Amino acid sequence: MSASEPTASIPDRGTAAFSYRENHRLGDETLAQLDAWWRAANYLSVGQIYLLDNPLLREPLTREHIKPRLLGHWGTTPGLNFLYAHLNRVIREREISTIYITGPGHGGPGMVANAYLDGTYSELYSDIGQNADGLQKLCRQFSFPGGIPSHASADTPGSIHEGGELGYALSHAYGAAFDNPDLLVAAVIGDGEAETGPLATSWHSNKFLNPLTDGVVLPILHLNGYKIANPTVLARIPEEELLSLMRGYGHTPYLVSGGFDGEDPAAVHRRLAETLDTVLNQIAEIKASAAAGTLQNRPAWPMIILRTPKGWTCPKEIDGLPAENNWRSHQVPLASARDTPEHLDVLDGWLRSYRPEELFDNSGTPIPLITDLAPKGALRMSANPVANGGVLRRDLVLPDFRDYAVGVPAPGATVNEATRVLGEWLRDVIRANPDNFRIFGPDETVSNRLGAVLEVTDKQWNAAYLPSDEHLAPTGRVVEMLSEHQCEGWLEGYLLTGRHGLFNTYEAFVHIVDSMFNQHAKWLKTSKEIPWRRPIASLNYLLSSHVWRQDHNGSSHQDPGFIDHVVNKKADVVRVYLPFDANTLLSAYDHCLRSVDYVNVVVAGKQPTFNWLSMDRAIEHMTRGVGIFEWAGTEVEGEQPDVVLGCAGDVPTLEVLAAASLLREAVPELKVRVVNVVDLMRLVSEGEHPHGMSDREYDAIFTTDRPVIFAYHGYPWLIHRLTYRRAGHADLHVRGYKEEGTTTTPFDMVMLNDIDRYRLVIDVLDRVPGLGERYAGLRQRMQDARVRARAYTREHGEDIPEVADWTWTEGPESQAREVNTGVGSSNVGGTESREG
Amino acid sequence: MSASEPTASIPDRGTAAFSYRENHRLGDETLAQLDAWWRAANYLSVGQIYLLDNPLLREPLTREHIKPRLLGHWGTTPGLNFLYAHLNRVIREREISTIYITGPGHGGPGMVANAYLDGTYSELYSDIGQNADGLQKLCRQFSFPGGIPSHASADTPGSIHEGGELGYALSHAYGAAFDNPDLLVAAVIGDGEAETGPLATSWHSNKFLNPLTDGVVLPILHLNGYKIANPTVLARIPEEELLSLMRGYGHTPYLVSGGFDGEDPAAVHRRLAETLDTVLNQIAEIKASAAAGTLQNRPAWPMIILRTPKGWTCPKEIDGLPAENNWRSHQVPLASARDTPEHLDVLDGWLRSYRPEELFDNSGTPIPLITDLAPKGALRMSANPVANGGVLRRDLVLPDFRDYAVGVPAPGATVNEATRVLGEWLRDVIRANPDNFRIFGPDETVSNRLGAVLEVTDKQWNAAYLPSDEHLAPTGRVVEMLSEHQCEGWLEGYLLTGRHGLFNTYEAFVHIVDSMFNQHAKWLKTSKEIPWRRPIASLNYLLSSHVWRQDHNGSSHQDPGFIDHVVNKKADVVRVYLPFDANTLLSAYDHCLRSVDYVNVVVAGKQPTFNWLSMDRAIEHMTRGVGIFEWAGTEVEGEQPDVVLGCAGDVPTLEVLAAASLLREAVPELKVRVVNVVDLMRLVSEGEHPHGMSDREYDAIFTTDRPVIFAYHGYPWLIHRLTYRRAGHADLHVRGYKEEGTTTTPFDMVMLNDIDRYRLVIDVLDRVPGLGERYAGLRQRMQDARVRARAYTREHGEDIPEVADWTWTEGPESQAREVNTGVGSSNVGGTESREG
Repeated sequence: MSASEPTASIPDRGTAAFSYRENHRLGDETLAQLDAWWRAANYLSVGQIYLLDNPLLREPLTREHIKPRLLGHWGTTPGLNFLYAHLNRVIREREISTIYITGPGHGGPGMVANAYLDGTYSELYSDIGQNADGLQKLCRQFSFPGGIPSHASADTPGSIHEGGELGYALSHAYGAAFDNPDLLVAAVIGDGEAETGPLATSWHSNKFLNPLTDGVVLPILHLNGYKIANPTVLARIPEEELLSLMRGYGHTPYLVSGGFDGEDPAAVHRRLAETLDTVLNQIAEIKASAAAGTLQNRPAWPMIILRTPKGWTCPKEIDGLPAENNWRSHQVPLASARDTPEHLDVLDGWLRSYRPEELFDNSGTPIPLITDLAPKGALRMSANPVANGGVLRRDLVLPDFRDYAVGVPAPGATVNEATRVLGEWLRDVIRANPDNFRIFGPDETVSNRLGAVLEVTDKQWNAAYLPSDEHLAPTGRVVEMLSEHQCEGWLEGYLLTGRHGLFNTYEAFVHIVDSMFNQHAKWLKTSKEIPWRRPIASLNYLLSSHVWRQDHNGSSHQDPGFIDHVVNKKADVVRVYLPFDANTLLSAYDHCLRSVDYVNVVVAGKQPTFNWLSMDRAIEHMTRGVGIFEWAGTEVEGEQPDVVLGCAGDVPTLEVLAAASLLREAVPELKVRVVNVVDLMRLVSEGEHPHGMSDREYDAIFTTDRPVIFAYHGYPWLIHRLTYRRAGHADLHVRGYKEEGTTTTPFDMVMLNDIDRYRLVIDVLDRVPGLGERYAGLRQRMQDARVRARAYTREHGEDIPEVADWTWTEGPESQAREVNTGVGSSNVGGTESREG
Repeated sequence: MSASEPTASIPDRGTAAFSYRENHRLGDETLAQLDAWWRAANYLSVGQIYLLDNPLLREPLTREHIKPRLLGHWGTTPGLNFLYAHLNRVIREREISTIYITGPGHGGPGMVANAYLDGTYSELYSDIGQNADGLQKLCRQFSFPGGIPSHASADTPGSIHEGGELGYALSHAYGAAFDNPDLLVAAVIGDGEAETGPLATSWHSNKFLNPLTDGVVLPILHLNGYKIANPTVLARIPEEELLSLMRGYGHTPYLVSGGFDGEDPAAVHRRLAETLDTVLNQIAEIKASAAAGTLQNRPAWPMIILRTPKGWTCPKEIDGLPAENNWRSHQVPLASARDTPEHLDVLDGWLRSYRPEELFDNSGTPIPLITDLAPKGALRMSANPVANGGVLRRDLVLPDFRDYAVGVPAPGATVNEATRVLGEWLRDVIRANPDNFRIFGPDETVSNRLGAVLEVTDKQWNAAYLPSDEHLAPTGRVVEMLSEHQCEGWLEGYLLTGRHGLFNTYEAFVHIVDSMFNQHAKWLKTSKEIPWRRPIASLNYLLSSHVWRQDHNGSSHQDPGFIDHVVNKKADVVRVYLPFDANTLLSAYDHCLRSVDYVNVVVAGKQPTFNWLSMDRAIEHMTRGVGIFEWAGTEVEGEQPDVVLGCAGDVPTLEVLAAASLLREAVPELKVRVVNVVDLMRLVSEGEHPHGMSDREYDAIFTTDRPVIFAYHGYPWLIHRLTYRRAGHADLHVRGYKEEGTTTTPFDMVMLNDIDRYRLVIDVLDRVPGLGERYAGLRQRMQDARVRARAYTREHGEDIPEVADWTWTEGPESQAREVNTGVGSSNVGGTESREG
């Protein structure tokens, strides 16, 4: 498919965006127009599901016109089309910038049909014109090899919502509405989707929306009554209970029901149109009073419950079993249309029931009555630039992160909480970008020590206040609700509509959104292949309460496997960074906030820890992504090291450095190289990831024939997986998290997982040929040190002082080479540090 | 800790379980008793958080009595204790078997305190007696190295609910209530947890509960107003809105509020007690009318909203900032009690405010007034055997799965949908186990072709019915709601209370419950180490709509990474099976339903596919978990093969067999070995997993020096990860899913991911030394075949006949060796199958 790009834009109408209009009775012509659009969209939807050819039914329908594999979902589609037609009318009349979130995204044929009817589709895919030839291609491509998917996807104009996994329609909608005060987001929620957990809580998003500075979300709960093979819960509770539920969610519900028992759609058109007028007037009033400053409390925003038959307008019965208004119309009601002549006849009748001859002219172009219903230009929901956020994205104004550097006169000479330092920079990011950057999190922004941001902004909150509340305000750059699903969904919606942000959460609980990450990563992968989709800001995770320091929580909060999950996705969309101190974290995050179309996972501890690199060195190291810490090793110029100590992550880096210093004291002749990997994808072969190292680079760093002891933040096998093709892999020994440790101290935690300094020294002794025999005494002392540390912890409830008070000491050589200032006192390893 | 085991049981009281009692005004003595319990539980909770020693405050509190690291959560605890005391009273009065689900499981000290006061704790942990010595150990062990975690966990008596990730209190509660008609499940939901998606939808569980045959869930929404650093949503909406929400969820809400502004707890005790009496009488009435058959509709079960101050009874202010009734009391309000003398004084005052001298006698034993409040024996919530489900678990009565075998006269001679065959066996499992086995799923049981179960049972449903409904009934063994969280939570609750079941869902969407699986796996790991916890039935997944056949859905439903996620957990709790046909699936599932304390992941397609093994061979193969398909290879007795074709999963097995047959025809001199891995953990080294093969076994199967081409169901690197220590790993070449393929046909899908038969043949040609040069023509023809297949699919919308109609043909040798009956017609590989 060729593709052009949308250039239209929507003028800023300020507070006039939502205007009150006197309700008027719908004229018959408008009614006819709405119905014609709806019939045309339904016709094209059925056509897409079934037809290879003969899209205008100008010849008798035969077997050859039917696709051999009938794939798609009809059931939800007529409802989606019905709503689309009606929204067209009100957008045209009121000129409200509107996007359409299709919760039941599997109703893909409907969304394509609507985009085709309003002209957007042919503008973006020029080979699919509004004529008979285009119609044939439109039908054929749907759910056909080499064509388009059956779900609304990145290739569907006007979509920001992949229609795969259900549950996120409302959180995406609210994410789009934040900081878009003139925008209306019409969000259709299927009654199947409404049963999911994420959707059930996302109704509460209205407690986080500011009526003045944010846009409006109009939830439309589409009750068609059935899922795949079951009725839906919300369609089978008493109406009063359902209305009570919606009021309990803080909405003013409007119920529109119709189309059952053969009711004339005209009556339903009229009811929905009148309701939409009422609802939009209520919205206009809320917006006006917000603008006037007279809005007292959180408004009970309107929402619509539309109850229509599942599969509305398909055959009432097929083979004597109900089809319309039954779960049997969920996918393809006439699955054997190709091979059963009677079914072919039924399909023929079904298609002709829309009277296509009235809807398309001789050349196959939709008649003006239909196309005139569409709003103009960018006001068309399928053409609205908000739904192609990349075209609206402005680069962030980023303060120079180097100005926030912590002083590191020598490695380990100072201590900081890395995320607290990042918070200071983020504070100024917020200051410089007051309307297109947000931080989302499940109540952990302060716990994650990003509290400095609250110096310049607040946590957005639109529920009741108490005098004791702090940093809550009707508008703010931080949005917190105890639902990772909400945070992720809001951020995705915010990014997909052209803005920037980050999601900070506990490492273990980010698994809650594993499948949401999946969908977003797939969206990014697909959208990169669609010329008219412009790059959007990356989705940035900050996982700062990580597995090694779950002091208040223990094993229930320990699982570093999100990284494993992420690296399963296409290499060109995922990045994983493990900064180990304040300066590397600053540098990493600056990079993340500048990037587009990635998912960046940054794992960085919030606890006080040593700063290892000055800012200049941090930048250099971050730029390389992997590097040798010459200052920490004991290599001899021009010679291979005897052993390589690798590390990735803040706690492993600390333990490796402590092990290196123990070795330097105890085994002075050993040539140790210390390597840190801060950009995890550097480990991968260059052909497999854009950040991957060539084998030559890898070998130069890790050697090809020396033992490598690698201490890694997460599950150890991930390092094997990333490096299994590398030379010397057989001699790579990885220590990492292995599901041990509940109630414990920081050092006990690393000991339980065998990633502590003493264990690493033992690993070196065991793996460097001959060393173990020569240093049997050291090996024993390392084991004794572990036993002693364990016993001390059990007795005193805190880490043994020789570990708790440990600081890095420069070796004589590296002092000469690199350090200008003295460092703190040394008690490296206590009695463990000497060996004959 | 030593441990004994609970032996008590609760007599079956039939329909008298829930009896109506005339409400009576609470006597002052009972009031004093409730308050004494509450004060004691609070005192012990604070003691656990802060005290190393001096638990009875018999000496002045000093720095040395305070733990060096203060870890835990106070905020939710007093509310949990308050409820526990009150439930004790009503259980004692009414003798209702009751368990207590602690949604805010981080209030661990409270649950331990209550179990200590009712005597259970000392019964199970005999070194922690009800005396001064026991008290000291009780306090010291909490959140202390080598002690117990700060969250309710498997080691907490009476708990079936890990208090880590929030959201599952109600789904666990309903899972426990299913088929336990005499059970009351009191489920405390924190207002933080209430914001999560899973919790928000779990209220709807009441539409799936049968009032006659299931137990009763009493949700208690505990509004203490704050999370870590924010107010909660539900505490900040108008009361009428909250009540409306609860009514919308189908409940009759009862609001109890108190304790604010210094209100005397006595008044709150009275209000809660009266409300509990009212609520239990309402429950008794519902139960009675259900028993009498006079219950017309779904009852509006009562629920309680308890609004009390966060951190109730802790200091009102600390350092001039609010503590009680503020988020600051969430964790440890006096975090510097050890190092700040003023804070130590405040702590002293706080502890003494509970008047411990009135609560414990001279030897440190709780006074009889307190202990008498506890129900007797197994009626104690901490001792209820339902919460230690393993003691109640009965083995399933399993029909002989061999009786359900499909006939396989020769490999590939017959075709079945494997899950449809499994469904027939499951039907009879249900028939034989009518009250302790359930199937949960998000509306996919029929879609996953397990529909045969509906011959003997229905889908349990307690919302409105329509005449057109099928297989819905007030009680049934199948429970379906469109929420994977609900399905998983229900099943966990069902298993943890001693029953059996399975969860069937789409492979891609099982990621929705990644983090729930984590918690359950950790629970299993922990409970194995607790002597009084008895083994529970395994958690069985059936992932039958897998990534290779997402016909209606495409890429949005593709992600095989759940397996990767699962194998990150401790080896002794996870098992992964990839049966590839009907008989292996039967054998696998029989094994799963017999097993305990595992998580079994079974991935098995639902589409028609060839049966490869007769039942005898299937059992043999399943028993080994990995094996050589001699009938498919071209080995020569006593010689090493030239190449090994490995496979795991139904689609990869098909492609490998097709490749093997192509090679047999085209490269007759090539000695091919075909190996199938059905138990994925067999690949692991024996030291790392109980199912792991020894290196000798592995080498005997895969050789040490021949190229291995391995076609795997999921992400290919998992196979590398599992085998990286094996000999010959450098020559292991894995094909698997790599995120390719949207709208396509089955064979196109495998081609796009380079795991198709033609590609595998090319792999063999490229990797067996010298073969590529000799068979350059074959290589070209394989490439041509792929191009032709792709082009055919693009043109016709279905797979090219030479693939679609392919069937397995026995080689002459294996026919002689193994097959008694003839096989189907052969058109192996069409023109691709010959080579000079």
